[in-house]
Amino acid sequence: MNKNAARVAELRKLMKDRGIDAYIIPSADYHQSEYVSAHFKAREYMTGFNGSQGTAVIAMNDAGLWTDGRYFTQARNQLEGSGVRLMKLHVEGTPELTDWIKDNVPAGGTVGFDGRTVSVKDGRRYMEVFGAEGISIESSMDLVGEIWNDRPALSVKPCFYLEEKWTGESTAHKLSRVRAKMDECGADVHIIAAIDDVCWLLNFRGDDIDFFPLVLCYAAVYMDHVDLYMDERKLNDEIRAHFAEDGVILKPYNDIYEDVKKIPENMTALIDPARFNHELACSLKCRKVEDHNPTVLMKAMKNPVEIKNIKNAELKDSVALTKFIFWVKNNYDKMRITELSASEKLTSLRREQEGYIRDSFAPLQAYGEHAAMMHYAPTPETDAVLKEGGMLLSDTGGGYYEGSTDITRTTVLGHIEPRLKKYYTAVFRAGQHLAAAKFLYGNHGWSLDVLCRQPIWDLGLDYQCGTGHGFGYLGCIHEPPTGFRWYVVAERDEHHQFEEGMCVTIEPGIYEEGDFGIRIENNVVTVKDEKNKYGQFMRFDMMTFVPIDLDAIDPEELTRSEREWLNDYHRQCREKLGPFMTDEENEWLKEYTREI
Amino acid sequence: MNKNAARVAELRKLMKDRGIDAYIIPSADYHQSEYVSAHFKAREYMTGFNGSQGTAVIAMNDAGLWTDGRYFTQARNQLEGSGVRLMKLHVEGTPELTDWIKDNVPAGGTVGFDGRTVSVKDGRRYMEVFGAEGISIESSMDLVGEIWNDRPALSVKPCFYLEEKWTGESTAHKLSRVRAKMDECGADVHIIAAIDDVCWLLNFRGDDIDFFPLVLCYAAVYMDHVDLYMDERKLNDEIRAHFAEDGVILKPYNDIYEDVKKIPENMTALIDPARFNHELACSLKCRKVEDHNPTVLMKAMKNPVEIKNIKNAELKDSVALTKFIFWVKNNYDKMRITELSASEKLTSLRREQEGYIRDSFAPLQAYGEHAAMMHYAPTPETDAVLKEGGMLLSDTGGGYYEGSTDITRTTVLGHIEPRLKKYYTAVFRAGQHLAAAKFLYGNHGWSLDVLCRQPIWDLGLDYQCGTGHGFGYLGCIHEPPTGFRWYVVAERDEHHQFEEGMCVTIEPGIYEEGDFGIRIENNVVTVKDEKNKYGQFMRFDMMTFVPIDLDAIDPEELTRSEREWLNDYHRQCREKLGPFMTDEENEWLKEYTREI
Repeated sequence: MNKNAARVAELRKLMKDRGIDAYIIPSADYHQSEYVSAHFKAREYMTGFNGSQGTAVIAMNDAGLWTDGRYFTQARNQLEGSGVRLMKLHVEGTPELTDWIKDNVPAGGTVGFDGRTVSVKDGRRYMEVFGAEGISIESSMDLVGEIWNDRPALSVKPCFYLEEKWTGESTAHKLSRVRAKMDECGADVHIIAAIDDVCWLLNFRGDDIDFFPLVLCYAAVYMDHVDLYMDERKLNDEIRAHFAEDGVILKPYNDIYEDVKKIPENMTALIDPARFNHELACSLKCRKVEDHNPTVLMKAMKNPVEIKNIKNAELKDSVALTKFIFWVKNNYDKMRITELSASEKLTSLRREQEGYIRDSFAPLQAYGEHAAMMHYAPTPETDAVLKEGGMLLSDTGGGYYEGSTDITRTTVLGHIEPRLKKYYTAVFRAGQHLAAAKFLYGNHGWSLDVLCRQPIWDLGLDYQCGTGHGFGYLGCIHEPPTGFRWYVVAERDEHHQFEEGMCVTIEPGIYEEGDFGIRIENNVVTVKDEKNKYGQFMRFDMMTFVPIDLDAIDPEELTRSEREWLNDYHRQCREKLGPFMTDEENEWLKEYTREI
Repeated sequence: MNKNAARVAELRKLMKDRGIDAYIIPSADYHQSEYVSAHFKAREYMTGFNGSQGTAVIAMNDAGLWTDGRYFTQARNQLEGSGVRLMKLHVEGTPELTDWIKDNVPAGGTVGFDGRTVSVKDGRRYMEVFGAEGISIESSMDLVGEIWNDRPALSVKPCFYLEEKWTGESTAHKLSRVRAKMDECGADVHIIAAIDDVCWLLNFRGDDIDFFPLVLCYAAVYMDHVDLYMDERKLNDEIRAHFAEDGVILKPYNDIYEDVKKIPENMTALIDPARFNHELACSLKCRKVEDHNPTVLMKAMKNPVEIKNIKNAELKDSVALTKFIFWVKNNYDKMRITELSASEKLTSLRREQEGYIRDSFAPLQAYGEHAAMMHYAPTPETDAVLKEGGMLLSDTGGGYYEGSTDITRTTVLGHIEPRLKKYYTAVFRAGQHLAAAKFLYGNHGWSLDVLCRQPIWDLGLDYQCGTGHGFGYLGCIHEPPTGFRWYVVAERDEHHQFEEGMCVTIEPGIYEEGDFGIRIENNVVTVKDEKNKYGQFMRFDMMTFVPIDLDAIDPEELTRSEREWLNDYHRQCREKLGPFMTDEENEWLKEYTREI
């Protein structure tokens, strides 16, 4: 018997004992993090499928795994023999997960899940849909945990403190701002389950999940102290001293579920339902005010110290990426370079930079037609060799003490066809329009997005994703509450107007399945421009300085102002990168950034 | 005693008899029309103030008139001696109308108004605010009407029928579409109070208000017939025959208020609270479904016959306006031309066009610094003489059997300063960007607006109004549900995505108080472009063909594609206008539209 089938059988035995008719297994930790640590990969443990997105449901006589088009092939292979059937999301004929459960659970039956791994939104949907059918919900059982003998332990890797020279604002000051917001909405306590919010507020970081240097924890901010729920073995004396000074009291990680039940009913708790899990919400018996965590907007508006630091990080990263491009362009025809070896090379070049901590997200290196898949990351099975006439799309970033980056360049190997130059030039123009925009305060991603989209729509093409996203300072690389999209997706947290200090990516592209992919991604920070009787004008300040590949630019397609912008950008690249390059690199850089 | 003061005194006597402590007098007819006929100018009759916007409130010991900044000077002069005090809207220190009433009405007192002239939204606000204070509302008394002896009668001017060659859709077909929508939302009757909606649905027009060829009427659409409330003396036999055929039953105009009270409580009425008056809503006792009138979207999406007709109307109007520009540019230095005489000249040129009915809105002719006031219309007191070195802004339109137009050109007299050329060129580029845009289906005014705004924002300037609005076919010149604005104003009815057949204006500008004003306004229709795997692309089809003034264009500021667009536009102007011009005009036109 396949090992996953055996695990499913074992789970069913346990389900029978506990009176559970269907058990839902999402791909989440208790904080709805973008990356989860091995401890939380319960869905992979049960089904064998290890894609980043997917929800399994085990019923007594059937089992399904819902995932999206990126993973159909992989899931089909990995689910083989498990008895878990692939349910293709957004494909006609696939039942909704909740409908399927209704069909597989008898009236009066019970659906179970670990409510800590389910968002408030999904939990509310389950309560509504199943409640209407007379199906009960049991959300306090971690049944996979009970049968998972060799489950990886939670991380106990050490945390580190971020001095004010990195953060620009003391914990005491951040707490006073949060408490003022609590006061405004009449809250006595503010419970934070989003780990990037807690880490930002308390000025510390750790190593509990992949890529993002965050710590598994919750905080309950009271007016006179903070209860911090985490494994305190991760803390050194320095951090403990800071916490003591700021009235931060340490409590065991999972104690929060019992503790919040004891908050008196006449107290009011501020919670953010978009950043809270179902079980924690159910445990909270006092009055609730629902709103965004105040920390979301506060941490998105980087302060001058952070911006200065981030610009340093961006420069270091620009140096590493430019050295990488030099290496690729000059070596792809002399040695065997593959997507994976290129990826290692780039990480090693980042590692040479002072203050480098780790890559800021899973690096994407995609050659040729692989680049048409927006989220393609090479594996030993798919690893392609770089060759003349193709393009390498590198979407990567570094996490430094000074900040995090998320940069994409598409690099020409040798000579490319004219049609690819036309597309590359359109992608450059798209990003340039947004990078150069001057706009009145009050604009949103949805009111500016078309500036970027227009050169690509003019060709009858579209990149079917957002144009960019906020990014955190040693936090999440996709950071709310801002992003660029030409339509409003209500459930996405990207609808805030641009405020001074907000850092965002601008990353248009053109993707043709089975053919090629082009993306150019820069990091910018929102700054104030002139203020006059019409209002406060804003603009984006460029932070990424990696040359645009002139081997892929058709100057005839550029307007005068676009050409001037590009020449000026390249002059800045030479000036800023030059001091960190070897003579050989500088000689190449001079030609690579020549005036056009 | 000032005659308005005498009227106010008389009203107070009546108020005392009826137990009214404060009486609200808005500037509206029963249909919230943009222009109202003399019969409805109750606020002007009472206070003397005749601006287009303003609400008067007469209390026992005080009286106020609330209006906005456009009218402060005029209102101060016209209110003099009336005892009615000017209340400056949006100026610090001015009390809110409702707050002022609360201060001037004793507890247990009563506020009165003619509920037919108050919108549902205002009515609901009054009920909420005054209800909370224990102040009663009496909304069924037209007290001004009772003291207004020589009140102008309602129009009895004849209506005319619009054949299918003009409308492209029979009344029977329109009714079947409306009834299908009623069915969808479970309505047994749909009551329509918006006169442009009724006129569109029943394919007739009239002459009851200024400029818009509409008829004062209401309709109650049942599944098997329509009750049409209007003065039937306006109808000829042809219309009566059409109405009989379509099951349209005539009823006296004001009977609707009693009739709707009799609709059985178990029936459901569909009403549009944004297009309904307070009194009618209060009279309706049955179940209500609130939604947009289905006619709003239907009439905004012009059908192929209407579009063909509208293009004819636009061409006629382009001919008239181009002849006018020829006349102004060649005569301003030979004869005395003023704003008012120019306005007469342009209307006379429109009148020469076949099928001309009337101007489609109050014409704006603004010379020099007058053009900085966006809504300036000349009066004998302000009438300016046209002179060398200035610019004339002409924002005018014609109503023809084929359709209505709303076009603006700014014309240079002689030579203008380089800075004005820079601004004019930016305004041209702004409009060109939007006119040439290709965009995916699903875009809204708020997602495209920045394309137009950008060249002007780049200069640190802004036109502080929308970029454009939908316009009706012999209906309202500002027609919902679409418009261009970079931010969302919830209460404005302009948030629908662009659908095929929607006609909109594109009218960016630059305005400098006390100095100059530039606006270029074109009329376009939304059409489908290519459909491919990315979706349905859309674009705007140009309908206005009046040359752009090259005397104000700096070709150095144009990109290649902008210059090509302009040359192509001018070629089309020559080709389309040529056949309708004199030899002399054509000779001038050739030079005026020369390639640059």
